[in-house]
Amino acid sequence: MTYTILGTGAIGGYYGAKLQKGGNQVDFLARSDFKHIQEEGLKIDSVDGDFTLEKVNVYASVQEMPKSDVILVTMKTTVNGKLSELLAPLVKEGTIIFVLQNGLGMEMEIEKNFPKTILLGGMCFICSQKIGPGHIAHLDQGYITAAPLHKRDLFHLEDILEDFTRSGIKMNIHEDLQESRWRKLLWNIPFNGLTVILNTDTEGIMNNTHSTALARRLMEEVLVGASACGCEIDRDSIDHMIDVTRDMAPYEPSMKLDYNFKRQMEIEYMYRRPLDAAEKQGVALPCIKMLIDQLSFMERESI
Amino acid sequence: MTYTILGTGAIGGYYGAKLQKGGNQVDFLARSDFKHIQEEGLKIDSVDGDFTLEKVNVYASVQEMPKSDVILVTMKTTVNGKLSELLAPLVKEGTIIFVLQNGLGMEMEIEKNFPKTILLGGMCFICSQKIGPGHIAHLDQGYITAAPLHKRDLFHLEDILEDFTRSGIKMNIHEDLQESRWRKLLWNIPFNGLTVILNTDTEGIMNNTHSTALARRLMEEVLVGASACGCEIDRDSIDHMIDVTRDMAPYEPSMKLDYNFKRQMEIEYMYRRPLDAAEKQGVALPCIKMLIDQLSFMERESI
Repeated sequence: MTYTILGTGAIGGYYGAKLQKGGNQVDFLARSDFKHIQEEGLKIDSVDGDFTLEKVNVYASVQEMPKSDVILVTMKTTVNGKLSELLAPLVKEGTIIFVLQNGLGMEMEIEKNFPKTILLGGMCFICSQKIGPGHIAHLDQGYITAAPLHKRDLFHLEDILEDFTRSGIKMNIHEDLQESRWRKLLWNIPFNGLTVILNTDTEGIMNNTHSTALARRLMEEVLVGASACGCEIDRDSIDHMIDVTRDMAPYEPSMKLDYNFKRQMEIEYMYRRPLDAAEKQGVALPCIKMLIDQLSFMERESI
Repeated sequence: MTYTILGTGAIGGYYGAKLQKGGNQVDFLARSDFKHIQEEGLKIDSVDGDFTLEKVNVYASVQEMPKSDVILVTMKTTVNGKLSELLAPLVKEGTIIFVLQNGLGMEMEIEKNFPKTILLGGMCFICSQKIGPGHIAHLDQGYITAAPLHKRDLFHLEDILEDFTRSGIKMNIHEDLQESRWRKLLWNIPFNGLTVILNTDTEGIMNNTHSTALARRLMEEVLVGASACGCEIDRDSIDHMIDVTRDMAPYEPSMKLDYNFKRQMEIEYMYRRPLDAAEKQGVALPCIKMLIDQLSFMERESI
């Protein structure tokens, strides 16, 4: 299978490079870094060992790219407004679209516009950053939890699992995409938003009883939202997430980095869509709604 | 009647000076400014006309002060932990304690320790600031809405009204102190907290749809809390407060100034007590609770 990386940044640059190094044909879409990657390739500084890919199939536009067996959607959800336009030239019958983004509802939205594709979703548990043009630092972890939008497509994910495993990418397969996405939100919703609003990092949140209590209450709201959408997540998960976060090295989540660098934040898919999904079921999530308003205010003031 | 001013700052300095200028005997408690006021008096720069009181009965300690007919509690609620100690030497049978502070529950707390006093509460609608030792700037408004803790004491408030009116201080008398306090909280809770958390002023809140919507939802929670405590405030009050705030000159509320100057914020009486009062009635106020946690976090980081 051929792989197409839509967005050669912290996520796409890392996983795409690993796949190519593992022997797969990989095509990369890059914007600002196109020329640099074409000339110098991709450089990965990884906790698992540094490596450089000197020759990379990199493109500045999807129009020039071949059609794809598997498209990895690795750009930020903030540009999902352009996603259909980007996918159209790449999609053929049976193309697999594997969405490696944070948030809720991306796969269903893509399926509406590309009903003949196979939709898979992946949650990346990774600390990685683009530190220069074509230069990615992989700092910690790296495994993916993946699930198909429709259970009938589980076997496609198993094919991909082979390629990923051979390339040294750890992947767990789950059956229920929505539940997996809500489980990721259980961490993302409190820690992304609160580190922005309180101008701190995960350690700052965990070292203060008020912010820890608030993170817990936000997590409880995520469980309420998940449950309203038919995903029952056990309450022990909250304690587990709190413990994991307390044990982590101090960390600024992706949204905090976006805010620091005056980039648009992923409010829409990470917060608004989960809130809308719950409200559609008649369930209010007042603290998440408050966080959305606060983040939206701060984004307007900063950009 | 003799008046004692417990705290010669933006509130106590202004109203105390007005009362003395109006012909009343006034004793002032001052801490850091004691020496300066003793030597130079009190200077008021007021939109209604500047004036200076050259001779002022100022004390550095309550132990040296005469017992009082009417004590004006004008210090910040952040030092209410010491209030009993301060009041004890000043109180005689029949002393009136007139609490000119923001928040909820101060009068009941004082009454527990001084059951033979008469408790009145006042909400000051004033923009004033201490701009130097013994030097107060009165920028706008200045009227007081006052009510007795117990309706039987209404006539005491009418005596005070005479002195205040003669001294050029506008005062409205209400019958229900709790309702009056909740009405003041209707503005204080959203605008004090949000200007701190979002690092802005009233204009910043009103110029952004997200923060305006959030201010409204916080106000709705205040109404829910008030109602749980037996105070029915009509929902039109929210629209009215929003309109008033939109028409105001850009303004940093007292809590924002406290935060700017790294002073303790009045979280306890302005937020925690109203929340506790509502929760005691079995009613949750999730957004106010979230604001408390955020403010408490920020206070710890800043002081």
